[in-house]
Amino acid sequence: MKQIQTSIQDHFWNEYSKLVRDTVIPYQWEALNDRIQDAEPSYSIRNFRIAAGLETGEFGGWIFQDSDLYKWLEAVAYSLERHPDPELETIADEAIDLIGQAQRENGYLNTYFTIQEPGKEWTNLYEAHELYCAGHLFEAAVAYYEATGKRKLLDISCRFADLIASLFGTNPGQMKAYCGHPEVELALVKLYHATGEERYLNLSLYFIDERGSKPSYFLEEWERRGRTTIWAQGEPNLEVYQSHLPVREQPVAVGHSVRAVYLYTAMADLARLTGDSKLREACERLWANTTGKQMYITGGIGATHLGEAFTFDHDLPNDTVYAETCASIGLIFWARRMLQLEAKSEYADVMERALYNNVLGSMAKDGKHFFYVNPLEVWPEASSKSPDRFHVKPVRQKWFGCSCCPPNVARLISSLDEYIYGVSEDGRTVHVHLYIGSEVSFETEGRKVTLSQQSELPWNGQITFTVSLTDSPDGAEFDLSLRIPNWYNNGRPTLKINGEIQQYRIEQGYAKIDRTWKDNDQVEWLLPIETTLIAANPLIRADAGKAAIQRGPLVYCLEEADNGKPLASLSLADQPSLTERLVPDLLGGCVVVEGDGYVTDNAGWEAGMPYRVLNKQLKSIRFKAVPYYLWGNREPGEMSVWLRY
Amino acid sequence: MKQIQTSIQDHFWNEYSKLVRDTVIPYQWEALNDRIQDAEPSYSIRNFRIAAGLETGEFGGWIFQDSDLYKWLEAVAYSLERHPDPELETIADEAIDLIGQAQRENGYLNTYFTIQEPGKEWTNLYEAHELYCAGHLFEAAVAYYEATGKRKLLDISCRFADLIASLFGTNPGQMKAYCGHPEVELALVKLYHATGEERYLNLSLYFIDERGSKPSYFLEEWERRGRTTIWAQGEPNLEVYQSHLPVREQPVAVGHSVRAVYLYTAMADLARLTGDSKLREACERLWANTTGKQMYITGGIGATHLGEAFTFDHDLPNDTVYAETCASIGLIFWARRMLQLEAKSEYADVMERALYNNVLGSMAKDGKHFFYVNPLEVWPEASSKSPDRFHVKPVRQKWFGCSCCPPNVARLISSLDEYIYGVSEDGRTVHVHLYIGSEVSFETEGRKVTLSQQSELPWNGQITFTVSLTDSPDGAEFDLSLRIPNWYNNGRPTLKINGEIQQYRIEQGYAKIDRTWKDNDQVEWLLPIETTLIAANPLIRADAGKAAIQRGPLVYCLEEADNGKPLASLSLADQPSLTERLVPDLLGGCVVVEGDGYVTDNAGWEAGMPYRVLNKQLKSIRFKAVPYYLWGNREPGEMSVWLRY
Repeated sequence: MKQIQTSIQDHFWNEYSKLVRDTVIPYQWEALNDRIQDAEPSYSIRNFRIAAGLETGEFGGWIFQDSDLYKWLEAVAYSLERHPDPELETIADEAIDLIGQAQRENGYLNTYFTIQEPGKEWTNLYEAHELYCAGHLFEAAVAYYEATGKRKLLDISCRFADLIASLFGTNPGQMKAYCGHPEVELALVKLYHATGEERYLNLSLYFIDERGSKPSYFLEEWERRGRTTIWAQGEPNLEVYQSHLPVREQPVAVGHSVRAVYLYTAMADLARLTGDSKLREACERLWANTTGKQMYITGGIGATHLGEAFTFDHDLPNDTVYAETCASIGLIFWARRMLQLEAKSEYADVMERALYNNVLGSMAKDGKHFFYVNPLEVWPEASSKSPDRFHVKPVRQKWFGCSCCPPNVARLISSLDEYIYGVSEDGRTVHVHLYIGSEVSFETEGRKVTLSQQSELPWNGQITFTVSLTDSPDGAEFDLSLRIPNWYNNGRPTLKINGEIQQYRIEQGYAKIDRTWKDNDQVEWLLPIETTLIAANPLIRADAGKAAIQRGPLVYCLEEADNGKPLASLSLADQPSLTERLVPDLLGGCVVVEGDGYVTDNAGWEAGMPYRVLNKQLKSIRFKAVPYYLWGNREPGEMSVWLRY
Repeated sequence: MKQIQTSIQDHFWNEYSKLVRDTVIPYQWEALNDRIQDAEPSYSIRNFRIAAGLETGEFGGWIFQDSDLYKWLEAVAYSLERHPDPELETIADEAIDLIGQAQRENGYLNTYFTIQEPGKEWTNLYEAHELYCAGHLFEAAVAYYEATGKRKLLDISCRFADLIASLFGTNPGQMKAYCGHPEVELALVKLYHATGEERYLNLSLYFIDERGSKPSYFLEEWERRGRTTIWAQGEPNLEVYQSHLPVREQPVAVGHSVRAVYLYTAMADLARLTGDSKLREACERLWANTTGKQMYITGGIGATHLGEAFTFDHDLPNDTVYAETCASIGLIFWARRMLQLEAKSEYADVMERALYNNVLGSMAKDGKHFFYVNPLEVWPEASSKSPDRFHVKPVRQKWFGCSCCPPNVARLISSLDEYIYGVSEDGRTVHVHLYIGSEVSFETEGRKVTLSQQSELPWNGQITFTVSLTDSPDGAEFDLSLRIPNWYNNGRPTLKINGEIQQYRIEQGYAKIDRTWKDNDQVEWLLPIETTLIAANPLIRADAGKAAIQRGPLVYCLEEADNGKPLASLSLADQPSLTERLVPDLLGGCVVVEGDGYVTDNAGWEAGMPYRVLNKQLKSIRFKAVPYYLWGNREPGEMSVWLRY
């Protein structure tokens, strides 16, 4: 069992974990079995049944379809760990049996190659996602083992990992290669932690070290295949797959954004576990670039749908945006690893930003509809009539042919407790990264400590911690470090212990209290939330002359449902007198922000007149903004995060 | 010979016609012969030589490559008509001989099918451009015949046209079909005018009438081809080729924008020649939609590079824009036909807008570099690093693989005199559409009238006309109608005749003087030019909160060379105190506009900080704007037409 136990009890998040448990996981099981009407079929279970010899037919869906089942199993594991459910566990066990039946004698496991192209295994590392799918298998196996103690999926994984370890490496006869889609690297670290087998750590490190070496394996392999590809056209684009340079030398985040952050996540793991300073510097450099120059205010990354990729510094268009859900989830994975490397509040700030905005906004309130692309500006007519914006959907979809995002949301939310705290192995330092009502239990010098957090975030910033040391009347000494969020703009927040204001040091953005804690000590951490207007760096051309509304961790947006259209006609007043109001019956209850603005008076414009002499006719209005994560849950309409001022 | 003779003598335009004569036409001849270093080869002449049996080899370039030679010949014809040049005429005659050698016995003429796919003629009307190329042949032939009196190319054309007339139509055994790319329709009207043969007019009308009928020929043909296509994928997209509905029923401009305006041009011709009121209504409806809801302020049309197409009403992004040069040229063709249908100033306003901005801006000052795409906002780094903007070039190119635009510019500029006046057949009404220094001669009631125009546009709006009636001492009666440009915003312009202010009626946007003119009558038409700020219709989201600078017919823009970057940081002051200044040594001499503005102070921003609390730190600056048509003639840099206010 884990040495550190956490659990969430939080008004805001309980609703989401319940949604994942009661709706998302069962719904996705239906989807994996192709039982959702009018949704694109998954083929996932069917593929496994065919590979297992229980059915006949062609492979269906994307080449990486297996990963959808694995990600679902991982989410199920997290859910079972926190909320035992024998019925669900039975379903999962059966799915695991099926996976076992689809595995070959030698450990190989991939339904695409087993069904569709036997004999072609490992001939297209660039595109075929075999190691990527293996990675998701390993993550699911580790989670399921930790949740249930059952080893079956772990054993399946180890057999496959051992096969991979025998095939890849620098020994004669081995492939000097790595996967086009990073994922197996971070998964092998988890497999190492679960099993204690260093060979999995070494295999992960090998993949990281090999990546981007010259001559390029992807180019050689492409030549060997007679220059054929599955879907990419022409010569492999090494930048898109982050294999243009050895990872330690990569200066900025490039290419497919999900691949990028999965890769960086593993790099951060390995930098911590090996103490490799070059690898750590690369992580820090890539982090600074990604979050400082290529991240939307919502925590979205990836500016273009062409290649689902980063473009370049400060290029963050709001309307042709990609900002894939999975990319922000990967950013959260990476942030967590960076916090493990070094507890700096900026990592947790980004984690919180991506979580409360891009990720949470990707799922409808019903848990059954999802965004793949998370735009900051939507004009529904453009989404249907301009091919440059076909990828930007104004309405969440039931499922996707390439359905990587929905199960990724499920596995993140159902394991969210793991992201709240950072407790050192000796229990001497405790960092609170996220303010989510929860309990964390750990041991320090033989004493069992439980820290309970009460929080009303994102609506209210009064946070309380209670220390439980029931078995240790003398107390216990540990450092408690509370993150000062970057959305708190009023100097040093007030901290009280047992009702008395307490001075504190600030280290790397955390308020640090070093003390011998007694049972029932109370910490009050006061972060009054104010609505603020945020500007983007002037180098971000798309946001010039505009401001976004933020309240605590929540970015706000304007919707047509509240403000009419076109939203672009609306601008902020010089002193917009922003007010906040809790509206219990709006979108399940939320704080709306209202303010003074102007709209261009359309009255003077004849219908077919495109241009005329400027005449600033403005009408005063009071606009209403809602949290971004709730957008698109009413009638489809325009939406905008950035407002002209 | 033509009944109405025009010639340009104009400080501004002489330079361009000289450039076309001395540089563009010779340069393009080199290009057609693949003799431009480091430029994409044309293959055009080579294809004809192969088809003529003078060389062997494969067809090169696009399937419609023949049209480049035809368009060049058309430009040559216009140039020869105005500026005889025996050496150039010899080259053209030799090219025409070559074309004749490539023509088959039965009249068929297309180097692609002759070289590459003999036997597959007319099997892919949707994509193969055979009738399109034929149309450009006919246009060249008519122009060359009118310029030189030589019939060879006209005879070649008639033979081909007669073959086409035998193949297409409603008789048994004929193809009930039309071309995927409209062009032959307008060319057949020219062929009818040149030859007097009504069968060419009827063939044009047949193509127009057949277009969009059900069942769709394109779909049937696609099935017959076994669902194969040349470059489009999947089922033919009927909207993209304006064949989704019969043309008289098409409600709005859709699809490929060059195809659209070539089609509408022919429709306007036919509406005039046949008196078909439904066709005329369709022209008026499509005109209102195109120019009222889908046109950039520069006269560019086509909002997306995907399909080089219109998207939908009010969708006019400035950075991902297409605004192809050929589309604006086609818009000018169409505007001229609309003026022939009915002299309304709005048609000429659009013609002037497209001419002085989008079209003129497409060619570099050197006459050897061209834009295909004419953006209103450029960020050079995005053009090279964001796949959404790869098509937007910050620097004009030498030539293009698909080089439709440069010869189109050449043929328009070398025939520009035809766009200035509208003289009725009886010489009783004369409309002046464009203010370009020129002479027009015509007869009215047996009297020869010459009207000379002196103009300093686009820099100065004082225009003078002198009437010459040397052979008619009693004078001659005709209506002179002078367009009141939509950029003139000071009520009724002053009109003087022989120094005295003259009252006038306004009809359809023209100042109309009905009078018996005497020899040496002088008309002064005073259109003092003021720099104005222009707003876009609030429904055009991309321009919300922004203004463009316009001075007379010229739209202005800001360039990085004058204003630094990012240009998006710059905004207009409330009272920008715009001043004008003639700068003789800038870009060949132009009036620059300067004004007060602000730039966001970047100083307070740390390099890697993407977002922070809004703090409107602004620095006052004086900005400098240059005419849009001159942009991109200095160091590559940012450019923007629309400025925040």
